[in-house]
Amino acid sequence: MPTLYNRIANQNLDRLSALSDGVFAFAMTLLVLDLRLPAFAAVHSEHDLWRSLAALGPSLLMFLMSFLTLGIFWNGQQTQLNYIERGDRDLAWIHLAFLFTITLMPFSTRLLAEFIHFRSALLLYWGNILAPGLLLYAGWKYVSRYQMIRADTPLEIRAAICRRVVIAQTLYAIGALLCLFGTFWSVGFIFAVQLNYAVAPRLPWRRRETTAA
Amino acid sequence: MPTLYNRIANQNLDRLSALSDGVFAFAMTLLVLDLRLPAFAAVHSEHDLWRSLAALGPSLLMFLMSFLTLGIFWNGQQTQLNYIERGDRDLAWIHLAFLFTITLMPFSTRLLAEFIHFRSALLLYWGNILAPGLLLYAGWKYVSRYQMIRADTPLEIRAAICRRVVIAQTLYAIGALLCLFGTFWSVGFIFAVQLNYAVAPRLPWRRRETTAA
Amino acid sequence: MPTLYNRIANQNLDRLSALSDGVFAFAMTLLVLDLRLPAFAAVHSEHDLWRSLAALGPSLLMFLMSFLTLGIFWNGQQTQLNYIERGDRDLAWIHLAFLFTITLMPFSTRLLAEFIHFRSALLLYWGNILAPGLLLYAGWKYVSRYQMIRADTPLEIRAAICRRVVIAQTLYAIGALLCLFGTFWSVGFIFAVQLNYAVAPRLPWRRRETTAA
Amino acid sequence: MPTLYNRIANQNLDRLSALSDGVFAFAMTLLVLDLRLPAFAAVHSEHDLWRSLAALGPSLLMFLMSFLTLGIFWNGQQTQLNYIERGDRDLAWIHLAFLFTITLMPFSTRLLAEFIHFRSALLLYWGNILAPGLLLYAGWKYVSRYQMIRADTPLEIRAAICRRVVIAQTLYAIGALLCLFGTFWSVGFIFAVQLNYAVAPRLPWRRRETTAA
Repeated sequence: MPTLYNRIANQNLDRLSALSDGVFAFAMTLLVLDLRLPAFAAVHSEHDLWRSLAALGPSLLMFLMSFLTLGIFWNGQQTQLNYIERGDRDLAWIHLAFLFTITLMPFSTRLLAEFIHFRSALLLYWGNILAPGLLLYAGWKYVSRYQMIRADTPLEIRAAICRRVVIAQTLYAIGALLCLFGTFWSVGFIFAVQLNYAVAPRLPWRRRETTAA
Repeated sequence: MPTLYNRIANQNLDRLSALSDGVFAFAMTLLVLDLRLPAFAAVHSEHDLWRSLAALGPSLLMFLMSFLTLGIFWNGQQTQLNYIERGDRDLAWIHLAFLFTITLMPFSTRLLAEFIHFRSALLLYWGNILAPGLLLYAGWKYVSRYQMIRADTPLEIRAAICRRVVIAQTLYAIGALLCLFGTFWSVGFIFAVQLNYAVAPRLPWRRRETTAA
Repeated sequence: MPTLYNRIANQNLDRLSALSDGVFAFAMTLLVLDLRLPAFAAVHSEHDLWRSLAALGPSLLMFLMSFLTLGIFWNGQQTQLNYIERGDRDLAWIHLAFLFTITLMPFSTRLLAEFIHFRSALLLYWGNILAPGLLLYAGWKYVSRYQMIRADTPLEIRAAICRRVVIAQTLYAIGALLCLFGTFWSVGFIFAVQLNYAVAPRLPWRRRETTAA
Repeated sequence: MPTLYNRIANQNLDRLSALSDGVFAFAMTLLVLDLRLPAFAAVHSEHDLWRSLAALGPSLLMFLMSFLTLGIFWNGQQTQLNYIERGDRDLAWIHLAFLFTITLMPFSTRLLAEFIHFRSALLLYWGNILAPGLLLYAGWKYVSRYQMIRADTPLEIRAAICRRVVIAQTLYAIGALLCLFGTFWSVGFIFAVQLNYAVAPRLPWRRRETTAA
């Protein structure tokens, strides 16, 4: 009985994009709520204040790291949706599941910031990077299979979108594995991978590659 | 006097959609704020941390359940609005009332998670599923009556949208009734219904139905 | 020097609408954060829970009242913007000031809910209804004066938008004055006015008026 | 390998705008969460309540100041994006970095409100005005260099957008320098500059300038 309903639901991708932008915007801004002000009573001089603020450094770095993750996934989802011609209910639910993992990001970030020496915290954080990656991959496979990609999308772009997820997730998995040596190695490696995705393309020797490609 | 104003107000459905997406995005992300970090002082080993995180399981499940509910109503509202040609002030207020019930969702979820053995908590939770359902139904009846549906909408789609609400709400009501045997039966049944709406269409034996339909 | 900049800034009204929808969506959802769960330790039976929930009634009513206010102003702003052809920087700042008063709404609602017997709380609440009203009025006057209204807007619609604000604000002012007799009279009157704006148009005897008009 | 991906990612600026509007809307509304209600127990009369509310004055002023800052940057970003023809991944990341600084604004506002006598708090606040300014400037330089500006954009507009950032940031830097004399001088000066950007264009003697230009 619900089959007709399934065909008619969620054909319009604009609202899916708008909902996603809202969830991302909110998750990005929520992170900062965890930056607590220094206690007024404990601050007697400029020096005290600088020291209290410096103590916020690790939290701020973790916040930056999660902001990068959110930015990377926002970019990834957006690029996919740009090439999709129309949606349906299944695709909407794949992306809702993706958004669910995004809403968990502030929690797993806080968890890692508080328990950075614990492997369980790191593995959960990694799980929260793996899950949205897998869902983005599933979403792209789904639209490929049911011919929902815009007809004018060149084949190499279709492949590039898949390859992208696979390479990034392989790197993150290597990062997670590094926790065998210590959780700081993992955090450092994952952070480096994220910075690479955000910043690297603008480095001069990458530019050259671009021209060569 | 206000009659002219009523005719001119809210003809544009885009802003209603944008407001709705904002409310849904916010309600979906708010839920996670209730996931509290384990207390740092109580965690001395990886084992302690896993146990503390496992203790968050029920909250997380409840959060997932509410996320599903929100996703289902977001889908439902969006599908309706897609078939509406233009709005007016009454329609805007029906959807604002719908959004009001959506903003209550994080509260009734928290209530149920805290008082899961109490029938009153369950019935309120169910009321919070019933109310948006009734309002979506009222919204569709309203646009049907005043010819505000897009002219190219086939009759069977109009019927499918109504049927959908009626079937889903009947199932939820059965779930609520199960609390006569125990609130866990209710929660389990409602969760199963929601999972069915989110996941089932992709199961193979449902696919066949689709083809047959 | 900044004059050229002023002319080029903010011509596009879409982003102003999107920002407004975000602020409204957030303010509407924030209100519910003030609904506190009953304390688990104090609840020993279904009866206790019902009683604790009933005690939330006044807060919920106040929340509903503010939701109505936000809905009314959202409607009002949206209707205006629909008739505006293009924006400029001054108009953007009028609407930003309007949004500023909207962000204060959760605070003044909470204040009134907590101090409902105090005239100062009521007057501040009223001030928070007056200010956005005046700013919407100023916004409409501004676009009227600089010919920024869409050319196809009939004259009676231009008048209706002004009249609307004036009538509503007069009623709210009467409500505020009633606090001479008691703050409950004010709250009741203002609530009645708001319900009227939200619900009344659908009452049968108002419908007749519509046809007659 | 990722070069093809870089070319195809983020061509659509609409989602960047939507994400930005969400972040700004949220940051603007978050500020008000810091306005705490007067303690009920401490209020015995209307006079007590007025006094408690008056004590909120400085916080409210600081909130207003940050709202102005956010409004100014929102205006600035929006005006830029209006003249950009298409995006790419680098531009998306410049604007994501810009949004990151925006999400920090509620924190640095709170910090300044709490530690207004401390130069470190003021300098951090100023840093949080400087950083988004530099990023907007970088964003505009980037689109200028890679010919991503809409072809019909007159040369003087391109210059005006740059000049605007430079002048504003020079004024803010002067404000920050004033902290040599006292942090209140800085706050007052920065507030005056912001008010000027928000309100001044509507003053009569500025209007004349506009006509002369």
